[in-house]
Amino acid sequence: MSPSGQHDEPESRRETHDAVPNPAGMETDPTLLGWMSGFPPPQDRTVRFENGSFRNFPELRWAWSNMRQLVPTVNVWRGAGPASELPREEQDIGQSASITMDGRSMTFMQMLRETCSDGIAVLHRGKLIYERYFGALKPHKPHIAMSVTKSFTGTLAGILVANGNIDPKAPVTAYVPELKSSAFGDACVREVMDMTTALEYTEAYADGNSDVWRLRRANGTAPIQASYAGPTTICEFLCTQRKKGEHGREFAYKTVNTDVLAWICRRASSMALSDLLSECIWMPLGAEEDAYYHVDRVGTESGGGGLSTTLRDLARFGETMRNFGRFNGRQIVPESVIEDIVRGGDREKFKLGGFTMLPGASYRNQWWVSHNDHGAYMARGIHGQGIYIDPKAQMVIARYASHPVAANAGNDPVTLPAYMALAKDLLAGG
Amino acid sequence: MSPSGQHDEPESRRETHDAVPNPAGMETDPTLLGWMSGFPPPQDRTVRFENGSFRNFPELRWAWSNMRQLVPTVNVWRGAGPASELPREEQDIGQSASITMDGRSMTFMQMLRETCSDGIAVLHRGKLIYERYFGALKPHKPHIAMSVTKSFTGTLAGILVANGNIDPKAPVTAYVPELKSSAFGDACVREVMDMTTALEYTEAYADGNSDVWRLRRANGTAPIQASYAGPTTICEFLCTQRKKGEHGREFAYKTVNTDVLAWICRRASSMALSDLLSECIWMPLGAEEDAYYHVDRVGTESGGGGLSTTLRDLARFGETMRNFGRFNGRQIVPESVIEDIVRGGDREKFKLGGFTMLPGASYRNQWWVSHNDHGAYMARGIHGQGIYIDPKAQMVIARYASHPVAANAGNDPVTLPAYMALAKDLLAGG
Repeated sequence: MSPSGQHDEPESRRETHDAVPNPAGMETDPTLLGWMSGFPPPQDRTVRFENGSFRNFPELRWAWSNMRQLVPTVNVWRGAGPASELPREEQDIGQSASITMDGRSMTFMQMLRETCSDGIAVLHRGKLIYERYFGALKPHKPHIAMSVTKSFTGTLAGILVANGNIDPKAPVTAYVPELKSSAFGDACVREVMDMTTALEYTEAYADGNSDVWRLRRANGTAPIQASYAGPTTICEFLCTQRKKGEHGREFAYKTVNTDVLAWICRRASSMALSDLLSECIWMPLGAEEDAYYHVDRVGTESGGGGLSTTLRDLARFGETMRNFGRFNGRQIVPESVIEDIVRGGDREKFKLGGFTMLPGASYRNQWWVSHNDHGAYMARGIHGQGIYIDPKAQMVIARYASHPVAANAGNDPVTLPAYMALAKDLLAGG
Repeated sequence: MSPSGQHDEPESRRETHDAVPNPAGMETDPTLLGWMSGFPPPQDRTVRFENGSFRNFPELRWAWSNMRQLVPTVNVWRGAGPASELPREEQDIGQSASITMDGRSMTFMQMLRETCSDGIAVLHRGKLIYERYFGALKPHKPHIAMSVTKSFTGTLAGILVANGNIDPKAPVTAYVPELKSSAFGDACVREVMDMTTALEYTEAYADGNSDVWRLRRANGTAPIQASYAGPTTICEFLCTQRKKGEHGREFAYKTVNTDVLAWICRRASSMALSDLLSECIWMPLGAEEDAYYHVDRVGTESGGGGLSTTLRDLARFGETMRNFGRFNGRQIVPESVIEDIVRGGDREKFKLGGFTMLPGASYRNQWWVSHNDHGAYMARGIHGQGIYIDPKAQMVIARYASHPVAANAGNDPVTLPAYMALAKDLLAGG
């Protein structure tokens, strides 16, 4: 088990992280430490897939910016057109002050260092006011979005709903009959979109026997031994899922829902997820660079966590959401899709999900909706990946990171207060 | 052993290919046959890495256009600028007639079908006069260049020589001391560049015990069992190479030379091969799309055969060579580098290499020089990859293919006469 292999379980049930260091980003900077530099790199500075060491800390500080060097991937084409404009109006927000959830004073720059940020881009009123890179990330290099990937899948599903290709009330089996004997056999699409299915599946990263590790072995992001008898493709794994309880009663954050949703999207559109993202979002967005998904052994994209994009393109997508789908001179996502997300999901069901650091929030179409007084909503991924959209402050934050703790519990107490404080600063500053 | 696993041995020593079908391209079109289509694709239409089936025919017709879905890769960035112009002036050359080496009449279009072309681009006087795609290839998708990769490595090495970073007369160990106890311990850089080293290494694709399969296991393009005790990185494999005979006496086409040359380039430039190609060629070229290399388990690019590019970008590079390094308004490769290649290598040494289909030719800096009356020279890769540059006819042909026979012996008798006939047509046509 790697030291970074923390869980993404609800905070109410999580273990303490006292044993995990909270290093300033510089001390574990993979470039300064010489990870994967030299021809070949020295053995003790080599990040490897086959022994699973790429998930160790600080190895993951290199790995999250270089996933395609570790696993097979498929391209998300940006098209042949020019990149869309991202006008700049630099503001030094590095000194923006906040108080962490555990009561410490913190500047924005200190927050970035302490949470092992790889890159941050802040947009205010559509202008890039702050952009910094750390660690192994560069402006043109894609970084893994982890579960921020889910919000892309959810938005694509929303587009297909708006276009009449998917009926959220329909049973999952209307699109994927293969799931008939699984937990999803009596679930409807909406329950999958909002993660209110009732599943045996567990997502505890600290436990090597947790189902999330079986999912990783199936989707090709954890090494398997020749003797491994479990499922070795995403679709096979999804078909083995068992029900536990009743669907539709409570929010339960489980990645398999998103992989099922991605499967539904493929069937409803007759397109690979990578082509769907390219055609519906990446090309009209005027993305600066191609993105990519990691794929399993039969070419199926990991729709639950496998997308890598550049930071700027992540920011472009966040700005598209903030503008109710309009960006680069066109309506990319139908307004109704984003109105539905912004309205949010069922807050009572969310409360049962145990995410105590997000009190009063909800989950809709694979987005986290805060319901705070700024109407902020988020895409969130482990190790600190995120899009934070604050409509009232007209602010979008895109962040990639390689925090040692997988769970957002390692980031939220420091990052969320910093984001909220910055939003207030920007609002006050006019 | 896969049915496509033919050798790339000199023709004088090769087996007959009577058992191998010579299918028209359409009959094995991977898109028409439904390879890797469906979510997930049906079992009997799935191309897999881990069982080696991606090298079977017709599976390879999909695989060669989708290498990154099978193995880890590293990006070759095109930069942020616009793509360079590739002016078009369509000519229907499909009926250009030739006689194959075995006496059959053949049109250019028939040649393309019979040799399982995936794509062809013909430039005449710098204008794109003909561009066609077949199989799984599309204009924006990279296709594996196989040993055409070597000509990129050789050209990069030439640039480093011109810049004074590499001395071709220096011993290999001046750059890579790790090779001291190997066959390369008493070789000089020039011998590696021109493949006149004397090695035990064999490159017989039809023989699973041939060293080329050990190289593939080492560079990550052939699956290995957990029990495999051989080298599992490119550098480790190169260090195991044994000498057989005396260096500098005869041309012997062996991929390990190019992997050593790539190692020398990295050490001389302090750059990864992917970054070196990006900076020296891909960015100034105004490439339309990023390219990529497949990488071994520690991130080392396969400089001997691992590059994938789009067809148009391959054509741009060919045109750069034809123009003595000038393209996109700038001098990309120093003129002296290409003058040296065009002059060619030692024809007496080449003769000893056994490539009887290329009588009178030579090999210089990883390029094949015909010394014919048009001064044609080539980059060549197994299964039919190639750049054919005809200075007299002012013609450049870039071709990607997925021919069932690995060795160029499967292609040359049909393709070379077609290229030469087309050159004559274009010259005659003014």
